[in-house]
Amino acid sequence: MTPPEGLQAPGLNQRQVLSQHWARWRKWNKYQPLDHVRRYFGEKVALYFAWLGFYTGWLLPAAAVGTLVFLVGCSMLFSDTPTQELCSSADSFEMCPLCPDCPFWLLSSICALVQAGRLFDHGGTVFFSLFMALWAVLFLEYWKRKSATLAYRWGCSDYEDIEERPRPQFAASAPTMALNPITGEDEPYFPERSRLHRVLAGSVVVVMMVAVVVMFLVSIILYRAIMAILVSKSDNTVLTAWASRIASLTGSVVNLIFILILSKIYVALAHVLTRWEMHRTQTKFEDAFTLKVFIFQFVNFYSSPIYIAFFKGRFVGYPGNYHTLFGIRNEECAAGGCLIELAQELLVIMVGKQIINNVQEILIPKLKGWWQKVRLRSRKRQAGAAMAAGRAPWEADYELLPCEGLFDEYLEMVLQFGFVTIFVAACPLAPLFALLNNWVEIRLDARKFVSESRRPVAERAQDIGIWFHILAGLKHLAVISNAFLLAFSSDVLPRAYYQWSRARDLRGFVNFTLARAPPAFAAAHNRTCRYQAFRDDDGQYSRTYWNLLAIRLAFVIVFEHVVFSIGRVLDLLVPDIPESVEIKVKREYYLAKQALAENEALFGAGGAKDNQPLAQEMRLGPQA
Amino acid sequence: MTPPEGLQAPGLNQRQVLSQHWARWRKWNKYQPLDHVRRYFGEKVALYFAWLGFYTGWLLPAAAVGTLVFLVGCSMLFSDTPTQELCSSADSFEMCPLCPDCPFWLLSSICALVQAGRLFDHGGTVFFSLFMALWAVLFLEYWKRKSATLAYRWGCSDYEDIEERPRPQFAASAPTMALNPITGEDEPYFPERSRLHRVLAGSVVVVMMVAVVVMFLVSIILYRAIMAILVSKSDNTVLTAWASRIASLTGSVVNLIFILILSKIYVALAHVLTRWEMHRTQTKFEDAFTLKVFIFQFVNFYSSPIYIAFFKGRFVGYPGNYHTLFGIRNEECAAGGCLIELAQELLVIMVGKQIINNVQEILIPKLKGWWQKVRLRSRKRQAGAAMAAGRAPWEADYELLPCEGLFDEYLEMVLQFGFVTIFVAACPLAPLFALLNNWVEIRLDARKFVSESRRPVAERAQDIGIWFHILAGLKHLAVISNAFLLAFSSDVLPRAYYQWSRARDLRGFVNFTLARAPPAFAAAHNRTCRYQAFRDDDGQYSRTYWNLLAIRLAFVIVFEHVVFSIGRVLDLLVPDIPESVEIKVKREYYLAKQALAENEALFGAGGAKDNQPLAQEMRLGPQA
Repeated sequence: MTPPEGLQAPGLNQRQVLSQHWARWRKWNKYQPLDHVRRYFGEKVALYFAWLGFYTGWLLPAAAVGTLVFLVGCSMLFSDTPTQELCSSADSFEMCPLCPDCPFWLLSSICALVQAGRLFDHGGTVFFSLFMALWAVLFLEYWKRKSATLAYRWGCSDYEDIEERPRPQFAASAPTMALNPITGEDEPYFPERSRLHRVLAGSVVVVMMVAVVVMFLVSIILYRAIMAILVSKSDNTVLTAWASRIASLTGSVVNLIFILILSKIYVALAHVLTRWEMHRTQTKFEDAFTLKVFIFQFVNFYSSPIYIAFFKGRFVGYPGNYHTLFGIRNEECAAGGCLIELAQELLVIMVGKQIINNVQEILIPKLKGWWQKVRLRSRKRQAGAAMAAGRAPWEADYELLPCEGLFDEYLEMVLQFGFVTIFVAACPLAPLFALLNNWVEIRLDARKFVSESRRPVAERAQDIGIWFHILAGLKHLAVISNAFLLAFSSDVLPRAYYQWSRARDLRGFVNFTLARAPPAFAAAHNRTCRYQAFRDDDGQYSRTYWNLLAIRLAFVIVFEHVVFSIGRVLDLLVPDIPESVEIKVKREYYLAKQALAENEALFGAGGAKDNQPLAQEMRLGPQA
Repeated sequence: MTPPEGLQAPGLNQRQVLSQHWARWRKWNKYQPLDHVRRYFGEKVALYFAWLGFYTGWLLPAAAVGTLVFLVGCSMLFSDTPTQELCSSADSFEMCPLCPDCPFWLLSSICALVQAGRLFDHGGTVFFSLFMALWAVLFLEYWKRKSATLAYRWGCSDYEDIEERPRPQFAASAPTMALNPITGEDEPYFPERSRLHRVLAGSVVVVMMVAVVVMFLVSIILYRAIMAILVSKSDNTVLTAWASRIASLTGSVVNLIFILILSKIYVALAHVLTRWEMHRTQTKFEDAFTLKVFIFQFVNFYSSPIYIAFFKGRFVGYPGNYHTLFGIRNEECAAGGCLIELAQELLVIMVGKQIINNVQEILIPKLKGWWQKVRLRSRKRQAGAAMAAGRAPWEADYELLPCEGLFDEYLEMVLQFGFVTIFVAACPLAPLFALLNNWVEIRLDARKFVSESRRPVAERAQDIGIWFHILAGLKHLAVISNAFLLAFSSDVLPRAYYQWSRARDLRGFVNFTLARAPPAFAAAHNRTCRYQAFRDDDGQYSRTYWNLLAIRLAFVIVFEHVVFSIGRVLDLLVPDIPESVEIKVKREYYLAKQALAENEALFGAGGAKDNQPLAQEMRLGPQA
């Protein structure tokens, strides 16, 4: 396996080669030299970068189609009848207040917001959701192939099953020794049954922690509502005007603080639990740890968008009969609907958070590195160092930061994959932003490994471990979530229903979606108002509501069945291992078996009788 | 692998041992001596019997729970308010005619039928559907384990992948020779690309044949309707009274004849197509043939129950505005509803067809065997035979019928599995009948193999082939079908809705489910009547209809998600290969690899560099 031409610079060591040909912004359009990465950092790190590069490559078509869908939205913006109707409605639709003590407002005042919403919410989104669901299926299928090819090329296809040794911490604390049934050697042993009990106990703790996070989310929602009421009731007029802003801002701050605290506690707890579960190998240990932390982080990061997408504004009741939670009126979506709010939230996460993350990833290591150097130098000076000149490379390496492992890198990317697929119906631009971010991310991570942190101990791995299963889970969730988003949050179905049952040109659609406040409410406030719902004048769900509900549910069923069926067929059509690799593996197995037979003939270890498998001959277990 | 004690009868040959200890009714409560079966008939036959026995064993709990659910239905029969109301309604509900020129009828006249329906259709059925869906998941999971264990014990775990040779017919007609990349030997070769084209062309033919069957089903439905009208319009009063009976009877006969003809054509066609596709190994050939024939037989056998369960009586319109197909009014379900009709159909299939089948399987081989003997004897006499005494066993064997292979046996059982799982919501007794049938079936098939047909050429196999995937597909279909059956055909949801929204004791439920014929219809017929639907007096769907539709669809979504999720979790929790077998396989692989390394060191075949896999060393393909 000679390195590709051009990477063969004489006189450079491996790290310098990597630094020149990989960890550079200028190389953004080049494939990564994975074999070199693997040779220097080991299979585990190389597999991460292989996955990251593969994922980024696959984001290209998704981003292209997403942008196209967005552009279609732009082009339809000014020809859309309901939006025009809404913007030119002046004061014909006076809307009921969105929160207690809020003012009445005019529907035409949110014209710009509704126009922005139309960019995301049109027929093309249905197509794009379908596209992304199948994209995710194919992405994972082809990653399986790529991963198998790499594992084979790097000779670690059966590393986990057969070759992996017990992790040192396990060996140190295992209570007994036992024969390893595969290699036939003595090694530390922990009874499977006790481990099972511990894993079960650990799962209970995880569930409890998740429950804490969810309870906390609910309390933040309550906090926002209470704060808004309290502030708006104060005498200070400036405060009153900004009531909801203040409430949501302080809510976010409290939220952030709690999340950070919980996160620290949780990661420490997960570490303790996973150690206590006594996993034999490093791979299993990391899988268990990863799963625990991922579940927590998933709830942490996704609970807010999930709340906005599926719960916020759904159980509000109607004017004069608002539903309450602990006596406080349930939150409504901001004017313009929840889908716009969700798109905003996603844009903030996809753009804002990623920019901040990347800046952090550039700056913080630099700062830490500088501090590390200062600290080490002063220590050296104390020790009376005189050998500053002519330092060996390992001494220079020691001045760098310790390598922090791949967990955070994976987590960031997998959460991003989740946002790209789960909420794609609300934000078709997400893949584009993910693509841009990842192009930077690859070289950023490469620089981090090559020039900012110490060379980590090379570890072997045969695949990306449990992350793959997490991705597969997210892919499933994505189909379900998109089905419900399109059916319940988007305007696609009400519009289609209106076109089909009333007017083909959508004239009057705005009026159709607005219910009239019940007479009692109008009388109490001395003015009438409208609100977004399909209800009769007495507040009961109208016939249209039930028709639409049936249509929405039918849409969910059809969408899920179609997507899951096509996904299943694609899954069956694409073999998990490329044929060329499979043939090589089988050839190897065939030769090995033949060699074993020859060996036995030579050394008289006893030829295999009949065609009984060999292991039976070895008398490893009782024969059934 | 010594045979179990008790089967070691001295002086008996293998066939006699099997005949004494296996192919006997008296042994119905004993496990099958699978190792002996395998030794005499080969792995393929042994795996069939292993599967059949395993399936029968798993039917036990299903049958027990199903019977329990049925008994619960019996016990609730006489305390059920709506049934009592219906039976005691006398002439208060006069119903509209079910077909053109049919008479008006009284709802109370179908009291017995509705009572029978209640035996199947109650809350317990929901539970049982759930139970059977999970039963199917677990059954397949544990069969995977059993199959892996047997394949390992019989030394054929990697038979298909590595050891299987080209089938002779393929070798004879393959256009070129090529190197087998696994064994490194020359063998006949057919280009993969051409095969793909042929498979695609074959699939088109299959789809066309399926379309023919469906078209034929529709034409039979039309035929029934037309016949009923023609006969009822004749002047003969006897004929008129029996109009619908005559129509459906002659319809069945025409149906049967066409099915038989199509079936013959189709099997012949499938054989030609599969041969033309040039599959390399016998296993692949059989898989391709099996899939083709199964698809056809599935449509053949299931189209009628599927039509009754999901289509019949759904698109009939309402009195005065009946929907038509080619000018003929759409069929309604018989009085009492489609679920009862479906249950009847299933009972006929499960009990009637199976009894007929078994009698056939006993009688026909006897007759054929007798005829075979007569024929052979007369031929022998012609040849002037004198050696009738002291025949060798193979001569006696030659007088038996040629063995017909396993295809029909598998097909029968897999179709039964489908009926047991797909329509279980309509007939909780199906597993019981399947169990009783299979207890007979095992010994019947054993007798057929041991004493009624010639010993087949022993074939190897590593599993039951594509039948497993067909079973997995049926399992998926079953969940979907049961969800829709419970939601749309059963009374469970309307009852629950009525209890929740109107009266807890279900009083008035019968009246609630009946719509009134529109005034125009009443005026035209000079009398008013009722019909089963949720419609307003003007024939439009009522609000209740839409409420219920939303509830039904929501039920489908919840049911499917719950069942598929639990199924998925079970799938993950149960390893596909028992740990003990997996360890042995890995041990074997480990030893083989070590032996290969030793071999190379001994014979200087060139030690593997670095940790490159061996096959690369063999220069089998270009190195990426």
